[in-house]
Amino acid sequence: MKHCIIVGGVAGGATAAAQLRRINPKIRITIYEKGRDISFGNCGLPYNIGGEVSDRDKLVAATPESMAEREITVKTYHEVIRVDSGAKKVTVKDVSGNDTFEEEYDYLILSPGGAPKTMPALLDVPQSFVMHNLEDLDDINSYIAKHDVNKVVLIGAGYIGLELIENFVRRGMDVTFIHRSEEVYRPLEDDMGDFFIGEMKRQGVDVRLNTEIVEVDGNVATLDNGEEIDAPMIVAGIGILPRTEFLKDSGIELNDDGFICTGETGRTSAECVYALGDAIETFYQHTGGKTTVALAWGAHRMAYVIASQISGNEDVEFEGLLGTNIMRFFDYDIATLGLRQHEVPGYDHFIVDHRQRNKAGYMDGSVPIQVRIYVSKPDGKILRAAVVGTEGVDKRIDILAAHIRLGGTAADLANIEVAYSPPYSSPKSVLNMLGYKTIEKMKKFDE
Amino acid sequence: MKHCIIVGGVAGGATAAAQLRRINPKIRITIYEKGRDISFGNCGLPYNIGGEVSDRDKLVAATPESMAEREITVKTYHEVIRVDSGAKKVTVKDVSGNDTFEEEYDYLILSPGGAPKTMPALLDVPQSFVMHNLEDLDDINSYIAKHDVNKVVLIGAGYIGLELIENFVRRGMDVTFIHRSEEVYRPLEDDMGDFFIGEMKRQGVDVRLNTEIVEVDGNVATLDNGEEIDAPMIVAGIGILPRTEFLKDSGIELNDDGFICTGETGRTSAECVYALGDAIETFYQHTGGKTTVALAWGAHRMAYVIASQISGNEDVEFEGLLGTNIMRFFDYDIATLGLRQHEVPGYDHFIVDHRQRNKAGYMDGSVPIQVRIYVSKPDGKILRAAVVGTEGVDKRIDILAAHIRLGGTAADLANIEVAYSPPYSSPKSVLNMLGYKTIEKMKKFDE
Repeated sequence: MKHCIIVGGVAGGATAAAQLRRINPKIRITIYEKGRDISFGNCGLPYNIGGEVSDRDKLVAATPESMAEREITVKTYHEVIRVDSGAKKVTVKDVSGNDTFEEEYDYLILSPGGAPKTMPALLDVPQSFVMHNLEDLDDINSYIAKHDVNKVVLIGAGYIGLELIENFVRRGMDVTFIHRSEEVYRPLEDDMGDFFIGEMKRQGVDVRLNTEIVEVDGNVATLDNGEEIDAPMIVAGIGILPRTEFLKDSGIELNDDGFICTGETGRTSAECVYALGDAIETFYQHTGGKTTVALAWGAHRMAYVIASQISGNEDVEFEGLLGTNIMRFFDYDIATLGLRQHEVPGYDHFIVDHRQRNKAGYMDGSVPIQVRIYVSKPDGKILRAAVVGTEGVDKRIDILAAHIRLGGTAADLANIEVAYSPPYSSPKSVLNMLGYKTIEKMKKFDE
Repeated sequence: MKHCIIVGGVAGGATAAAQLRRINPKIRITIYEKGRDISFGNCGLPYNIGGEVSDRDKLVAATPESMAEREITVKTYHEVIRVDSGAKKVTVKDVSGNDTFEEEYDYLILSPGGAPKTMPALLDVPQSFVMHNLEDLDDINSYIAKHDVNKVVLIGAGYIGLELIENFVRRGMDVTFIHRSEEVYRPLEDDMGDFFIGEMKRQGVDVRLNTEIVEVDGNVATLDNGEEIDAPMIVAGIGILPRTEFLKDSGIELNDDGFICTGETGRTSAECVYALGDAIETFYQHTGGKTTVALAWGAHRMAYVIASQISGNEDVEFEGLLGTNIMRFFDYDIATLGLRQHEVPGYDHFIVDHRQRNKAGYMDGSVPIQVRIYVSKPDGKILRAAVVGTEGVDKRIDILAAHIRLGGTAADLANIEVAYSPPYSSPKSVLNMLGYKTIEKMKKFDE
């Protein structure tokens, strides 16, 4: 019987295991997970803080026991510390017992994920946390309960930081937001995200920009301007790095930033070694350029592709990603897809921007929604899109994703026959209008 | 200067006039509208009853005066009673003055719309109304105010009837629903619409099925079972017929049901005569078969096509329609697209049905959404889709519309990279799952 080893048991690894077992009843599957838990909904962690996931245990999708029922062996607290892709074997460290052993594979699936970045000033600070896995969530909840914490200092303006701000506010805690620049949520255009700081203040958050913590002593944090603030709990969400150091001498190609290189089949540069999840480099669906997208949709899709490939169904391939993403911040919904802002200038392009009510304008409670697209001048392709509003943003970004995927151009948006009824849209939706505006702009180029 | 006459000044006609003027500053445009008003949001009428369009005047998008500012002549209370497409002239009746005159055109755009069906028992009943235009809305509101009406009998289970039930309930009136069968909202599959009657009852509606009104005497209506019910106001929404009798001897082709035949250019069978709106026969985008779709999106799109065609931009064509539609009924959203149910059996097909939470299942307040697709067996095309739920239905039907339009198959739904975050979807959305389910089904056909 062939043996498939999977490194990492969270979203990517667990889904790959489940898919592989479903397709392929005759393969031996072993998951090595360095942490305590497998297969938990890590995107849902912040919502347990705020109470919207009131049942913490619902975040656990599978356990080693439930995996065993499907004949998948799970070893938690087991870290793969070395891969020899030539000899097709891994070196595993039993983290609890400090034991090390080697294991051979026929197929290896790498889903090591990322490791949260840390700041020097927060090392060895007992009330400092990250929010990366279920252990972190449990630690935070325990600490709050044990120390009766009602105030938290949040560092980081990425989506995890922002989701945590919302959720700690929902929990009724006093929140201080510390950010070393004025730029909040880099995935979004600055002018489209100009509501972030205002919304934080409206929600009672103590906002401190252009500063950072340099030292923590007891429950007091000192900022770089010398100010001392009350910091009974600190949570940092300042980004992640791919957890791929163990692959250094594996013979598996990494890119300059340490992400594992993959292609349409999910295979790495090494035979019978596949990779998925937050630690891979993949490619843009619409331009073919290299990218990294640390999001769940791609991991789930790649799990299916890899399971199919390993099971001999080689015509199932990965199409690349648009990086379609969305975040809620209190009443706001923020979504983007396609190239990142800094990548757009590499293309000859123009911008089309449109703001329109999310439903018929005569309806009470209709609210504005703004969509911006970056259009490739030579071929009319949509390179990037950003959508902001308080209702219906998810609808628009998903339509764009479906449209772009099948080669729909910007002008072509005029032709999407959306469902119209006053509570849902205008007869010409915001996307249709972007199409018509694009056509007008292109006519002017031709003149 | 060329002269374009437009018959009918509501959604289709007014939009065509506006589009034509925008593209073509040098054409004379005259709209003849038989009624009092032009360019009102007829889809919004029911929502003024319920209060969601609190400002009735917001329903008026343009007036003869505002059209005059754009050099568009509008003649209200002027009915075109005859078209001679050979001589390129129309006969117009001034409804108020009873005067009749002829007018020549270079281009003629027909947007006569539909006429609401009536029932013999309701003829000459002063408290009986339909809800077809702004005059009807004003009449209903006046009657309610004048007679202090707090009870209404609703007839008809199409979308207008159902929207009126919701809105009269929202207004706080007692509603009796009378329907001659048990089949409510025919566009939707019976088993998917099994909530309608229950929801009506939950909302306090007095529901009477398999019966109809045979006589009205004063404020008392007699049903066919002999029962007498209180009927101080009756509103019937039992369908519309194309208002095309005036075209009988025009030389313009009508189909067997009286709809005006059109094609990709919006042109009718007669030279320089175009048609749009509720009274036209058009074609399905995905199958090419003939259909009629009395909805606003197609009228707006066709207005643009016709304006472009008349202005010499002949490469702008109509792609046909999927008939994407949506309706709200209290908390429920109901959407369909593609073939009508009775048309599906004409195709070799199979059904894929999936029910899933609209967002991550571990989130409190996630609610189920059901999507059913009818898949063409030979080529995997989606022939028809129906979506029901209480949240996120509009998103799913619009994604399907964008996907099908560009040739996306049912299996291909697995590849749509939706935006995932727990408040909006699961990593594998309900549409992705339909794709995977389709793939599984098709594998079994191959076995």
